[in-house]
Amino acid sequence: MAKAWHLTSRPQGLPTMENFALRELPDAPLEKDQLRVRNLWLSVDPYMRGRMNDAKSYAAGFQIDQPMTGGAIGEVIESKMDGFAVGDLILHMAGWRDGGIIGLDMMPNKLPEDAIAAGLSPQTFLHNMGLTGGTAWIGLLRVAAAKPGDTIFVSASAGAVGSAVVQIAKAREMTVIGSAGGAEKCAWVEDLGADATIDYKAGPVLPQLVAALERLGKPGIDVYFDNVGGEHLDAAFATANDFARFAICGMIDVYNDVKPQEMQYLVRTIPARIRMEGFIYTDQFIDCMEEFYADMAGLIASGAVTMRETVHDGLAATPDAFLGLFSGGNIGKMLVRL
Amino acid sequence: MAKAWHLTSRPQGLPTMENFALRELPDAPLEKDQLRVRNLWLSVDPYMRGRMNDAKSYAAGFQIDQPMTGGAIGEVIESKMDGFAVGDLILHMAGWRDGGIIGLDMMPNKLPEDAIAAGLSPQTFLHNMGLTGGTAWIGLLRVAAAKPGDTIFVSASAGAVGSAVVQIAKAREMTVIGSAGGAEKCAWVEDLGADATIDYKAGPVLPQLVAALERLGKPGIDVYFDNVGGEHLDAAFATANDFARFAICGMIDVYNDVKPQEMQYLVRTIPARIRMEGFIYTDQFIDCMEEFYADMAGLIASGAVTMRETVHDGLAATPDAFLGLFSGGNIGKMLVRL
Repeated sequence: MAKAWHLTSRPQGLPTMENFALRELPDAPLEKDQLRVRNLWLSVDPYMRGRMNDAKSYAAGFQIDQPMTGGAIGEVIESKMDGFAVGDLILHMAGWRDGGIIGLDMMPNKLPEDAIAAGLSPQTFLHNMGLTGGTAWIGLLRVAAAKPGDTIFVSASAGAVGSAVVQIAKAREMTVIGSAGGAEKCAWVEDLGADATIDYKAGPVLPQLVAALERLGKPGIDVYFDNVGGEHLDAAFATANDFARFAICGMIDVYNDVKPQEMQYLVRTIPARIRMEGFIYTDQFIDCMEEFYADMAGLIASGAVTMRETVHDGLAATPDAFLGLFSGGNIGKMLVRL
Repeated sequence: MAKAWHLTSRPQGLPTMENFALRELPDAPLEKDQLRVRNLWLSVDPYMRGRMNDAKSYAAGFQIDQPMTGGAIGEVIESKMDGFAVGDLILHMAGWRDGGIIGLDMMPNKLPEDAIAAGLSPQTFLHNMGLTGGTAWIGLLRVAAAKPGDTIFVSASAGAVGSAVVQIAKAREMTVIGSAGGAEKCAWVEDLGADATIDYKAGPVLPQLVAALERLGKPGIDVYFDNVGGEHLDAAFATANDFARFAICGMIDVYNDVKPQEMQYLVRTIPARIRMEGFIYTDQFIDCMEEFYADMAGLIASGAVTMRETVHDGLAATPDAFLGLFSGGNIGKMLVRL
């Protein structure tokens, strides 16, 4: 029997193991437009925290006592869906489980055989060729309209999205300052090509950002790619050049926190004419999918964009992998391998 | 001898009379490209507070022991500038004084004779046909891209900019909720056509905004026109519909305040895909000047847009008029008549 992690209660603040339970899924013969899959890789992503709340959110929230969902790579083991055959590798949304029956609502898509043949690992479609790489690409190039010569500040730059932002920006001849927690992560972000890094665990963000800009001879930032909110966002307001653009992808600092964010420099929105815009991958992906796949495949093939994976093994480890996102436990993309 | 208010020290927090002194201006024969003017009307505007700081701001800051500047309507009494003759009424930037010598740097422009002949008062060019009306028009229609059917929330809606926003929005068939301080101001904003008003002095903003939306049968706001920042801005984040646009024109709540703004709902930027953009009239005015003048003159002529003026008399009253902007002392446009 396939098993799935269910949400058993809505977390208050930081989620804990108590909010989840591993339960068997119902089994049945396949109906038309269904697949039976065996999952190989599961994705855990910060956005899932928002979906655990009862509040208005950008995706239909997770329901209590229902299976969790999320990006996953699976192998088709039985098919009653046109276009899918046993053995196909697919990307779909029925994650947090080892497999089972899925329908069209789980948006199954075959992985492109030529990409796999060219050496892309299947789980790349859970990061650089999927949600996190697409989020980085859309946020940096479309929402923030970053261009060669711009100075980019990116928070959580050792994370899946942030590390892709760093690399795409460097491939486009931008100056990049990345923040991350701890010396190991900062060293990795510099290996990726960042011109400077900020260790937010070593001290306040703003003075480090100001010092980095001075070292680089830059008057301020043109683009801020926000993954964390809070102190980082305020530092971006403080150092924004005129007509700076902020692409707001995530605010992991506040997802688990009901305290207000204290913004000292928000008022610079006016004198610096800052444009801040929240965005979600799925709103924009369809419009630019072909361009994204072509560009990103080229960047990966040339070695300009790489990804480090933090891998947890086994379905039982899924909540731990997810919780690790909020304790800074991952470098690069956090994955569960089944 | 002409006299001008000089900035004698940089205010910490709220300015006081101690920051200003009235001093004589040097006199001299006119040189080429100079005018001698007698001022008739002076404008005081909240943006001037920002220019009193030493920090980075959007206009070159006021200098200590130098005359203040700002919008003014004057009459030419002597001219060595091509295109200007004695008796011409002009709009220029040498405000905070009763007259004197001005050059091209004070951007003198003749008031259009046909508009004056048609009955527009000269001081209209200090509000609806000038800085405040232009700021309202650009912020609402261009920055926020407001369109018929949208629900608009505007703070300081009894102020010069806010009251113009209310009326332009109503003329364009939008639903308008305005906030203002006190029953008298709220009543005036409703007279202007607002569908609902919020008295921020009567209680917290957010519950009043939520109640107003419920009464109007609207799920949230599509546009926020911000003149104040702080609690109003946070309430806008809390109630924003998907893809809401915030035009950030001013944050008068925080100009005099060094405390951080506490933002509880900033995180909704992401799920609601909010776009927030700071703007300044002078950046955008040249591009849309003709369209603005034609549209606004029509709105004024039809009676769709009116303005209430709060008038202080005499040059000596100028700092008082300015300080009144921060104590909620004005309805409509605050002016000094000489």
